[in-house]
Amino acid sequence: MLPDIQVLKPNIPVKLNRVGVTGIKKIVEVDVRYRRPVILISIFDVFIDLPPNLKGANLSRSLEAVDEVLDSLTKKPVKRVEDLCMEIADELLKRHDYAERSEVRMRSELILTKKTPVTRQRTQEVISITCDAIKARNGYKKVFIGAELYGVTACPCGQELVKARIEEILKDLKRDELRRIIDSIPIATHNQRGKASIKIEVRDEFSPRIEDLIEIARSSMSSEMYELLKREDELEVIWKLHKNPRFVEDCVRIMAREVVKRFEKAPPDILVIFRQENEESIHQHNVIAERIATIEELRREMGGDV
Amino acid sequence: MLPDIQVLKPNIPVKLNRVGVTGIKKIVEVDVRYRRPVILISIFDVFIDLPPNLKGANLSRSLEAVDEVLDSLTKKPVKRVEDLCMEIADELLKRHDYAERSEVRMRSELILTKKTPVTRQRTQEVISITCDAIKARNGYKKVFIGAELYGVTACPCGQELVKARIEEILKDLKRDELRRIIDSIPIATHNQRGKASIKIEVRDEFSPRIEDLIEIARSSMSSEMYELLKREDELEVIWKLHKNPRFVEDCVRIMAREVVKRFEKAPPDILVIFRQENEESIHQHNVIAERIATIEELRREMGGDV
Amino acid sequence: MLPDIQVLKPNIPVKLNRVGVTGIKKIVEVDVRYRRPVILISIFDVFIDLPPNLKGANLSRSLEAVDEVLDSLTKKPVKRVEDLCMEIADELLKRHDYAERSEVRMRSELILTKKTPVTRQRTQEVISITCDAIKARNGYKKVFIGAELYGVTACPCGQELVKARIEEILKDLKRDELRRIIDSIPIATHNQRGKASIKIEVRDEFSPRIEDLIEIARSSMSSEMYELLKREDELEVIWKLHKNPRFVEDCVRIMAREVVKRFEKAPPDILVIFRQENEESIHQHNVIAERIATIEELRREMGGDV
Amino acid sequence: MLPDIQVLKPNIPVKLNRVGVTGIKKIVEVDVRYRRPVILISIFDVFIDLPPNLKGANLSRSLEAVDEVLDSLTKKPVKRVEDLCMEIADELLKRHDYAERSEVRMRSELILTKKTPVTRQRTQEVISITCDAIKARNGYKKVFIGAELYGVTACPCGQELVKARIEEILKDLKRDELRRIIDSIPIATHNQRGKASIKIEVRDEFSPRIEDLIEIARSSMSSEMYELLKREDELEVIWKLHKNPRFVEDCVRIMAREVVKRFEKAPPDILVIFRQENEESIHQHNVIAERIATIEELRREMGGDV
Repeated sequence: MLPDIQVLKPNIPVKLNRVGVTGIKKIVEVDVRYRRPVILISIFDVFIDLPPNLKGANLSRSLEAVDEVLDSLTKKPVKRVEDLCMEIADELLKRHDYAERSEVRMRSELILTKKTPVTRQRTQEVISITCDAIKARNGYKKVFIGAELYGVTACPCGQELVKARIEEILKDLKRDELRRIIDSIPIATHNQRGKASIKIEVRDEFSPRIEDLIEIARSSMSSEMYELLKREDELEVIWKLHKNPRFVEDCVRIMAREVVKRFEKAPPDILVIFRQENEESIHQHNVIAERIATIEELRREMGGDV
Repeated sequence: MLPDIQVLKPNIPVKLNRVGVTGIKKIVEVDVRYRRPVILISIFDVFIDLPPNLKGANLSRSLEAVDEVLDSLTKKPVKRVEDLCMEIADELLKRHDYAERSEVRMRSELILTKKTPVTRQRTQEVISITCDAIKARNGYKKVFIGAELYGVTACPCGQELVKARIEEILKDLKRDELRRIIDSIPIATHNQRGKASIKIEVRDEFSPRIEDLIEIARSSMSSEMYELLKREDELEVIWKLHKNPRFVEDCVRIMAREVVKRFEKAPPDILVIFRQENEESIHQHNVIAERIATIEELRREMGGDV
Repeated sequence: MLPDIQVLKPNIPVKLNRVGVTGIKKIVEVDVRYRRPVILISIFDVFIDLPPNLKGANLSRSLEAVDEVLDSLTKKPVKRVEDLCMEIADELLKRHDYAERSEVRMRSELILTKKTPVTRQRTQEVISITCDAIKARNGYKKVFIGAELYGVTACPCGQELVKARIEEILKDLKRDELRRIIDSIPIATHNQRGKASIKIEVRDEFSPRIEDLIEIARSSMSSEMYELLKREDELEVIWKLHKNPRFVEDCVRIMAREVVKRFEKAPPDILVIFRQENEESIHQHNVIAERIATIEELRREMGGDV
Repeated sequence: MLPDIQVLKPNIPVKLNRVGVTGIKKIVEVDVRYRRPVILISIFDVFIDLPPNLKGANLSRSLEAVDEVLDSLTKKPVKRVEDLCMEIADELLKRHDYAERSEVRMRSELILTKKTPVTRQRTQEVISITCDAIKARNGYKKVFIGAELYGVTACPCGQELVKARIEEILKDLKRDELRRIIDSIPIATHNQRGKASIKIEVRDEFSPRIEDLIEIARSSMSSEMYELLKREDELEVIWKLHKNPRFVEDCVRIMAREVVKRFEKAPPDILVIFRQENEESIHQHNVIAERIATIEELRREMGGDV
């Protein structure tokens, strides 16, 4: 019999909140409820807690827990990411009977096909999907799903500065004429890659679709991003972008409004986390905005505005 | 007059928890209380919150707040990182009068000189220093300082497996002889780069030295790491490493014990966060252990063991 | 008609060696000749050269070239990565008629299943596959395929140091007895994650299998790496590792010998690039060894030793 | 005496092109000839070659070579990065007497202070400096210095598309009036972070200043980048950016022209490498252009245009 020193009593009887394995790469076939089951290369982090009377956790069991659940998918493939992660969390508690709590984090890259805005060519978009699931032996559980994707943002402040200067330069024009010109053209400003992210709590009775999160995140920025753009498409993207200038603050608020609108049946205490990060084109630093709130708080703040 | 659209009312009256700038690189000369003031290349992230009635935060003011405080250092250079970050947090509230709360995060790389264990050659070590400071207009504040550094860990489980097999192979030896041999040599096991990290709360009345955090983190792993090692030093490091095999769990518990010991006058509600991450040599994944607790909780768990 | 300014004459008539797009992520189903076609998330970089009389390259055509070739896979799926990249290189020359030369780089992550060494549990391994293809309009072409994977290396130098010290400590034992003990146990040393990489030229008449490159890279280090290891397996890995201590220099030389052995029919001027990188466990820096040579040069250096 | 197994004969008598250490972090005080000596956190990679009759290189000597040269700086501090790297290359050949060739690569981050374009506020810019030095025992040497920095680029293609559409929309205006309006305002387009890089060969008789490389790289893009921008500055940056739209191809060609202009006394066979990479705001991929040429080739291509 080989020795098993993990089960020894440690010299220092301190409990640990998290003991686990990070960076486990797996091929997973799941239903992100975006048309049909898709194959994702996913990275898992799995944790359990450790009581003060055990020297170590047997981490090969954590890896077996992941494999066990993923293998079961070959028999009944279509599962949502949150069910998948919650099953792994269950399996972790089964295999580590000394643990009170298990935690699973999954990040995947989803490659979606979409059409360019004018020429309707097929192109694609890479989106990050996340799921974070916590389960306690006493029945408590907490699950979040998330989507994160890139888009373009045009700066409203820069645009107003340019507009003011144009008005000055063209001040010899009649007021109406100037107004017409300015309203009909896109006013230059700086624009950049932005990254929108939403994480939302999932419950047995409230199960938002990742597809909805993707659509909300996409529509929050000045324009979507595309891999392939023909000239007509590029013109359309630039035009749209300049007609919808948005600060990081605006992007987060638009996501908040859309979540409140789209999930009007969500329980009031559902937690949502919004984040927008802009890779500023005129600066070396990035700019971000964040909001963490329950659906109820957002509803209250927006009042009748939704 | 140039227009200022940040001060407009937004369409969606939702407040934001964090609006800010990330990745601001600065040269900083501070006292990490490790011998003498040192020059650090530091990366700052600075945030404020934004009320629902303002469209945007004027982020150039946040950058000015950082510069203002760093410039003041040229006049009176010696400052601790926590004082520096708290002053930036103060300056952020001054410059954004609509904000209720400001937050500063600083990460720096410190290059320390030390001696190799046997030949006493001068060599160096790269350590990450962090500071996270939150300040609210109502007087609330919370500050953490942290140190993170690399070392080596040898796996106790692998070592027991090897020891058991050696005992079997050499079972024709007399029991005492076998015991003597096994006790006098380093028993092989897998070993790897590990990263130890401690973050501890700082108060007006409790101000731990970064030097202490560095020493605790260094001593928590099986051996320290060195840049330059002559043959005599390398032998010593390998020997020590195998005489002190440690799981990630052990490393966190040792850090917890040392923090309780060294900071015996710390207020009971001081929060500490410990983390050990091993870049497992025999696996592609990493293994981690974490503990978040107040000093009081740690004292209670350890009972009279410290 | 929308304007097309790429075709204008530039102010500065300088030719460009490479104009292109990097970081195009695609799902690809190919034959890596490792059992059966596999699905890979692949990242492509594609380039063409640009003559001095054209202001810009129309890069949407480069993206279309990639899509065109990948789409053709849905009709006849099984292709080798080198054929795939060479077809994209062809398509690039077709779509950019002003270009003299095209270049395609592909990196993919392959997740392979294998068995643990003792308990024969199914586990997996993540391997990087690369292909670099260059094609000129005059018919010249050059293609490389590569494999890169992680394993474990134990340091022979550290092991000799420990052995010498053990011999000193146990010098009261009889010489034969000491020899027997030392030979029958694994002698401790530092060990770490290593990364082995081979890139080899591919020709119409010489088409090595990626499977072979993977096997050579795997066998060059002290031991393979596994995701899941039960205790019996872990013991076996540690034992093997200590019985095969290897410097980065040894790993590169073993790969060189195996390539010469396994590809004995390779044309003499086939170019091979070997690289081993160790994430030293006792140092913060990495250690590397590299060799770039033709098969002929390697054969000559090894003389009759293969 | 401790054993030294690096000097043994290897089983496989294959020579190695590069054996070395990567990622050595050091604080260095050097003269980048940009005003005054500056302190840089630098990362060094150092290599030597290894003959077929030696099992391993003694890499602690390579680390000592770096330390030896850096220590000498405390006595006579002001040195150019190329002298520093060449001295390390010399020292490597001295300490590894079996090596025929040594190689040193250095990357540093330089934080420069500059003024914003309108309000003349002091702000800063982070620039990467590199040096690559190769030295052979037979006297051959090759040294490159480089600078890489971020700026902003506005797309000329997108701008022409927008201009054409504006002309269509405003076609009821008189032709002259339309021309005047279009010429006097910045025409919107997509713009993004770009990264310009120049590497140039250094000789005893030709020693370009890093300051010049920085200025050339900065001026090659549509606008420089700033950390801090007040509203007046932001307007100026956006305006300038839209009045200088540039493809990656343009940026490389402008750098080539400026290098030919500024270094008119450079020997004809000096090698230069130019690279521009745009983090496209409307795409998830990046776009790049590259040129590798001798000064002579560039002079010839440009004819009398410089």
